[in-house]
This record gives sequence, structure tokens and C-alpha cells, in this order.
Amino acid sequence: MKQSMAMIGLFTLMSVTTVQANIWQALPEKAPAPKDNPTTAAKVELGKTLYFDPRISSTGTVSCNSCHNVMEGGDDSRPNSMGVNGQTGGRGAPTVWNAAFYSTQFWDGRANTLEDQAIGPMTNPIEMGMKNHDLVMQRVSKMAGYQVMFKKAFGNSDMSIDQAAKAIAAYERTLITPNSPYDLYVKGNKKALTAQQVKGMNLFADLGCASCHSGPAFNGQANVKVGTPVLMKFPTFVDNSYVSQYDLASDKGRENVTGKAEDNNMFRIPTLRNIAVTAPYFHTGTVKSLDEAVKVMAKTQLNIDLNTSQTNDLVAFLDSLTGPFPQQTMPRLPVTPGKSVITE
Amino acid sequence: MKQSMAMIGLFTLMSVTTVQANIWQALPEKAPAPKDNPTTAAKVELGKTLYFDPRISSTGTVSCNSCHNVMEGGDDSRPNSMGVNGQTGGRGAPTVWNAAFYSTQFWDGRANTLEDQAIGPMTNPIEMGMKNHDLVMQRVSKMAGYQVMFKKAFGNSDMSIDQAAKAIAAYERTLITPNSPYDLYVKGNKKALTAQQVKGMNLFADLGCASCHSGPAFNGQANVKVGTPVLMKFPTFVDNSYVSQYDLASDKGRENVTGKAEDNNMFRIPTLRNIAVTAPYFHTGTVKSLDEAVKVMAKTQLNIDLNTSQTNDLVAFLDSLTGPFPQQTMPRLPVTPGKSVITE
Repeated sequence: MKQSMAMIGLFTLMSVTTVQANIWQALPEKAPAPKDNPTTAAKVELGKTLYFDPRISSTGTVSCNSCHNVMEGGDDSRPNSMGVNGQTGGRGAPTVWNAAFYSTQFWDGRANTLEDQAIGPMTNPIEMGMKNHDLVMQRVSKMAGYQVMFKKAFGNSDMSIDQAAKAIAAYERTLITPNSPYDLYVKGNKKALTAQQVKGMNLFADLGCASCHSGPAFNGQANVKVGTPVLMKFPTFVDNSYVSQYDLASDKGRENVTGKAEDNNMFRIPTLRNIAVTAPYFHTGTVKSLDEAVKVMAKTQLNIDLNTSQTNDLVAFLDSLTGPFPQQTMPRLPVTPGKSVITE
Repeated sequence: MKQSMAMIGLFTLMSVTTVQANIWQALPEKAPAPKDNPTTAAKVELGKTLYFDPRISSTGTVSCNSCHNVMEGGDDSRPNSMGVNGQTGGRGAPTVWNAAFYSTQFWDGRANTLEDQAIGPMTNPIEMGMKNHDLVMQRVSKMAGYQVMFKKAFGNSDMSIDQAAKAIAAYERTLITPNSPYDLYVKGNKKALTAQQVKGMNLFADLGCASCHSGPAFNGQANVKVGTPVLMKFPTFVDNSYVSQYDLASDKGRENVTGKAEDNNMFRIPTLRNIAVTAPYFHTGTVKSLDEAVKVMAKTQLNIDLNTSQTNDLVAFLDSLTGPFPQQTMPRLPVTPGKSVITE
């Protein structure tokens, strides 16, 4: 087999096996930031404002937060997302919570960084629908409030799309949820989990779930260089009724990016953080409940048929990966007094 | 002329004239609340959560805040609003800021109270698109977090649509903007307005704008009993090019509610608070800038042709009616762990 994304998945699998002793890790209190975009308060505030601004979509109705709602689980509770003019995409929106701990972005890893990802949906015709990034920045640049915020964040008057991307990414790096019951448990508070949750936690390791869902974010990407996709074939085992029932194999995944047959059905390993509050499940959004999602995963990825008791224990454990979500203040969106920037 | 809504408009006009001495009034620091719905912290918190919850729309994409964005001017910067599945309505969204100071709600005054208004859009097929209010409350009732909040706000486990309406209205009564530069000026700080703004303020009274746009909210509804529409014919003077240019006369306004010809083109007198941040203008949303809106108003309502200097002075005065907007924390939307409430 040539070097392929499948190899990267396999490599991750092996590396986890060798660090078994250290399998349970708490989420860091701070997300890593790239050297060229250190997280600052001014950038975070600007990024939050842009993140909540629907006026950077063609219709003025869709913001980043529309599909990645930080007041919820960082997604939109829908099987697929709804962009401008009621259009729907083909995949479910991944949660923005802890996206900072991924080595690549999107279900197919087609963006290397949070910065790259942030500006993608703006010009996607079925997401935010702007014709190009210049038009995005034309709108933003008109607003005096944004002029001040960009200057404060970057020290110059460029107001470029790259700066917007950096600001949004800086904000997203604050959207992390350390100190879940699981984290407290790992840090030594043995009362933080119930007996059933501990049972589920051990089962999670014993069955092999942690082969892929490893590390503090349960996404196998803890020590992986940013820009390196960590993927797995989903579904791996196709001889079961779930594949057709939930239409798991139609989306070619990474193959759509690389054009290589070996990347067929390859997807980024998603974090399990806050999985209990991000239904419905999978890139398809076709599986409605977490218990069903757990059974589907066991069957399609490990060829295991879970019994009800095992499923319940695993779900109880996954529940321990939720929150706590930091309280946030609402941004105040800048204006152009006496005019709207929405002109379409 | 029979008793009609025009009479009410006229009555307001007269009453303002008689209280000329008291023409400039600051906005109260607190909005009035009805006896059967006193404002409490628990209700406000619940109401804010419901207000931001897109899951009470059929698609899970449209919340109250989608069209009445409190991070902006309380509207959506659009000529008309966009509801579920990209559908658009026929009128511009009025701002939610200071809606608590209206005697009726909607452009045509078809709801008596904030409570009545709050639940209207939920079942409007082109706004939030829910089939009925039972289905709204079925979704809400499923979420344990909401169960706790309703209990705390109302002391029982009813979780009724009436309670939801009361909570949203209670939240909206906190969305007020006293202490704008204008208010500070009226309260005695003579430096709060520029010389041009004072000039515009005097012109506003001299020309007759304050005949309708009177009282602390500039909507003529200060001492009017809740449930009484305060309306004015718009356009009143139709012998000008604005009427066709901006399609001002097609919408029948109040006539659509009462079926009476005398209510043709009758609309609620809108507040001018925050008018500088709620473009585009009028129920049609067809007028893009505030200076043009001021000229249109002078011509269609007072039959006056403003010169540029007058227009600029009036706009400068209107600018003084903006904000300040209270800082708000984001609500945390309750969940149904492991499931989505969006099932359509």
C-alpha cells in the first residue's frame, strides 16, 4: 500500500497502543496557538464579533454561529446545515467547541488550520454565499467599529481577510471545555464520575474505541503536527445493515479532496468532547441518538455487537465529556449609522 | 368621519400639542410591566434563553434573535426578514429595543401586548414555521434545563405557551436604551449633544415631526393604554414621486387586520430610538439611508421639502437617540442529552 491517509489512521492507532499507560488525559486549560497568531484579548473580541455577525453572509442572515452555535453544543442540532436562502449542505456541522485541538479542519481535513477553515464557509454558495472575500471585507471595512477593533488587534489599518481569519481562529481557541466530569476524574477527583461512567470508561478502552478516539480531545490528534489529517475509514466494516440504513457509504469523504480511490470514505476522527449535546450524529447526521451512534460505531469500526448494558455504560461515560461551557458576553455588532451594509 | 384609527392618530397629535412644554422627555430607566406579568430575574433569564433558541422554529434555524438581533439595532439590517427555508416576508422587522414602550405590537398593531406578539412568529409559516404552539412546547418541555427554568420562573410545572410568552416579554422589557446622548441632554447635561444636534432637535419640533413622534420613545404612545393602537396614515401626502419610487402605498397596513377601507395605509407610529442603527427604513424596507428616510417623511407626512442642511441637522439629532446598549451574557441553551429536538 502506498503512503495514504489510511496509513495516517493506522499510525495513530499504533501510537495510541504504545502509550497505553497514558491513555486518559485531561484537556489542557489552554489551546495551542500558532506562532504567527498568538491569542490576544483584542483579537478574541474582534473574532467573537465577526463570528456572530450575519452581515458577512450574502443575505445577512447566516453567521458562523448559525451552524456552530456556541450557546448550544457548538453545532446546530440538524442533520445537515442550512445556509443562505434555505439551502442545505450534505454534511452535519462539526462542533466548534474544542476545534482548536484538531490537526486539520472539516470532516475531510481539507483545511490545515482554524484560520483556513474560518473563511471557507463565507464564500461557499450554500453556506454564507458571499461571491468573494473582497466583498466580505468591503462590508466589514465600512463599519467604524470594526476599523477600531482591527487596529487594536493587529496594529495597522489593513483590515484583510487574513486578519479576519486570524481573529476568528483566536476566538475559537477560547472555545474549549476543560474540567468536564471526566477531566476532574482524571485529575484525581474519583467522585467526579459515577460507577457506571467508570465502567463505560474501561469498556471504551477494552473494546478498542480509544484506538482512534485517543488523547485529551478523543480525536487521536494530540501530538500530530497541525496540517496533518488524522483520518479513518468510516464505515470500515460494511457487512451490516447500518451502512444502508444510515447511508454511511455514499459520501466519498477525503476522496472528494484528493481524487484518490484509497481515500474513499476516509474522514477525520472527530472529537468525542460534548458528543452528548451534538446530536444528530456522524457526517451524515442520519443517526438520531447517541446510544444508536455508539452501536453503529462498534459495529462498523470494530465489528462488535454491543448489548444494551454495554451501550448504556458507554453512553454514560460519553456523557462525562460534556462541558463546562464558559459564560460569554454577547458582542456588540458595529454599524454604519443611517445605512445597512446588506445591499443585495 | 366615523371613529377610526385615524382618529386615534389625530388624538395623539392633539394631545402632544397641548403638552408642548413637556415635549422633551427622557426614557424611563425601567419599562412598565403588566400586573399579571411582573418582571423577575428568573423570567428574564428564561425569556432570554427562549429568545435565542432557534430550535423553536421548524428547521431549527430561526430564533427571535434572527430577525430582532439584540447584538445589532434589534433588527436584521434587511428590507424584509428571512424566516425558515429562506422565505421572506413583506415587511421589515421592527426593532425589539424599546418595544416595551409601545401600546400595541407589529407594524399594524395587530397584537395588544409584548406577550401576544412574542408567540406570533413561532407559528407563522414564513417566519418560524411551527405548525402550532403545542409542538413548540413539546420541544421545549423535553429539555430538562427548561423544566428547571420554567419551574423557577413560574413556580409550577405547567410549561405552557402562555408562560413562554410571559418570559419572552419579560426579557424584552429589559431591552431598553435610556441614557442616550439625547436623554443625558434632557436630564441636564448640555454638553451631551452637539450644536448641530440641538439645531436638529429644535427643527424636529418646529417642522411638526414631534406631532406623531412624541414622548420619551418618540412613538406617540407614552400615556396610551396598552392595547390601543396609535396609528397614522403613511403616506399621508401622495402627490410626490417617493410613493411610487419606494412603493409606499401598496401595503394596506391596518386594513389587512380590520378589513375597513378607512384603515388603508394606517401603520403604527414607530419609535425613533436607535433609528440610526436600524436601516433600511419603513415597513417596506425600501429606503436605504436615514437622510433619504427623513426627506421622505417630511414630504409624505408634512408635505415639506427639506433642504440638505435641514436634513443633515435632523439626522444629527436622530443619531443622538442611539443606545447605550446594555451588555448581556449569552444564554446557555438547554439540551436533550444524546438526542436532537429537531426531528423534521
